[in-house]
Amino acid sequence: MMASAPEAHPFDQAVALTPRGDGGHTGHTTAAYANMVGPFGGVIGATLLNAVMTDPQRLGDPISLTVHYAAPIADGAFSVTARAMRTNRSTQHWLVEMVQDEQIVAFATAVTALRRETWGATDALFPEVPPAASLERATPVERAPWTRCYEMRFVDGAIGGRPNDDIPSQSRLWLRDNPPRPLDFVSLAALCDAFFPRIFVRRGAWTPIGTVTLTTYFHADAAQVHEQGTGFLLGSARGLNFGKGFFDQSAEVWSTDGSLLASSHQVVYYKE
Amino acid sequence: MMASAPEAHPFDQAVALTPRGDGGHTGHTTAAYANMVGPFGGVIGATLLNAVMTDPQRLGDPISLTVHYAAPIADGAFSVTARAMRTNRSTQHWLVEMVQDEQIVAFATAVTALRRETWGATDALFPEVPPAASLERATPVERAPWTRCYEMRFVDGAIGGRPNDDIPSQSRLWLRDNPPRPLDFVSLAALCDAFFPRIFVRRGAWTPIGTVTLTTYFHADAAQVHEQGTGFLLGSARGLNFGKGFFDQSAEVWSTDGSLLASSHQVVYYKE
Repeated sequence: MMASAPEAHPFDQAVALTPRGDGGHTGHTTAAYANMVGPFGGVIGATLLNAVMTDPQRLGDPISLTVHYAAPIADGAFSVTARAMRTNRSTQHWLVEMVQDEQIVAFATAVTALRRETWGATDALFPEVPPAASLERATPVERAPWTRCYEMRFVDGAIGGRPNDDIPSQSRLWLRDNPPRPLDFVSLAALCDAFFPRIFVRRGAWTPIGTVTLTTYFHADAAQVHEQGTGFLLGSARGLNFGKGFFDQSAEVWSTDGSLLASSHQVVYYKE
Repeated sequence: MMASAPEAHPFDQAVALTPRGDGGHTGHTTAAYANMVGPFGGVIGATLLNAVMTDPQRLGDPISLTVHYAAPIADGAFSVTARAMRTNRSTQHWLVEMVQDEQIVAFATAVTALRRETWGATDALFPEVPPAASLERATPVERAPWTRCYEMRFVDGAIGGRPNDDIPSQSRLWLRDNPPRPLDFVSLAALCDAFFPRIFVRRGAWTPIGTVTLTTYFHADAAQVHEQGTGFLLGSARGLNFGKGFFDQSAEVWSTDGSLLASSHQVVYYKE
């Protein structure tokens, strides 16, 4: 059964999908992952990925996920339909649609693939930061209930906290699900969107914003993701450019022991 | 008329679409933009964006473009269909499909939007590099005909050239269409994929590769893109991680005078 039991972790409740019998699924926003308006976008993206992960046709592990936040999502029920657009020998391309009131409110594309042993190298540098236990636990943001669902311990770039000396839009933090939950691709997808909008950090003030599209690349296979368990992940996020109503931000998410698990990129609308 | 005249610039010939009357278009690969196998992916992505740019329903400038290279594309004809998935007051989300032999070979999603004057800042740093005129023009790669369609002048990270001292997968180069062509969003989309696969630079050797998905963010509006004209763009590309058959690469593309026009991210399959 794909719908989660009431005693399930709040994240599993939030991304749960119930098969409808026609190939589609129904799901429901949850109060735990509410944002200031509507649901937390990270959980919407994770729910769309969950439709791929639970599809019997799926080939291999997720390689990429691109989510489009096409319209405001109302609190309540939604339907989700996943479709393999093309299946090759070792890669598969997906389109997933989320519908409310017969209109698309979000959609995603994804690549899944069978991974093989090859030459490898990581050129990104694991940041030199103090261990999670030595850092203060951040207080959740009252008006964004989803922030209670993550334990965050900031090295720098907390809102109202110590800015990074060199990169004014950067935040680095240890983070994990609260309560702790063993990592999987679906929760990793949500964690990649758990970085506050860079404009809040860069300007030191809240402003109306909304992510329009988010792309996540998964560098780890299922075994590496499973190995992480419930430990803290190290996240690092920053933006390149803010202008004419849109800014970008990029983030890396590392395992406790310094393996790059995912990197993500998004474009965010802002008003002023 | 949307199909280009025979005397048109080779790029305009390559991305030309002829309306079919049922809302779809037909196009054709061209010999000028051939890659080692099939067409250059940058021109395929640009062709998909062209279907959005020429759609009478389009709202504003492109903000993002995500291309999925779903299967090998054969030299010859293809059909392209663009659909607005959701249109809001100031943003619009698109899905574009490319079909050969009744199968999807590529597809793209895009966001277009009406941009407005807002606060802005660029945190990315324009690289300190010698001017284009002081650098040698790179020789096209014989087995990749599309490389003749770009003039490239490498600062570092050319294949077989001087590596970057600090970042082994980085290339920085001045580049533009050859013959020169005034920049527009469609050619900018193709230029964002004109960086050689990072694995060639990182390992100093050619290996079988194929981009699976490419996302480009446009930081400039139509006026800024138009201002660039036929001048050299400065491109900078590097990868974060290579492992188990896939690597990522990111690039920034700057105007001659140091404005960030676009940034892009892709995941590439490799064999060994």
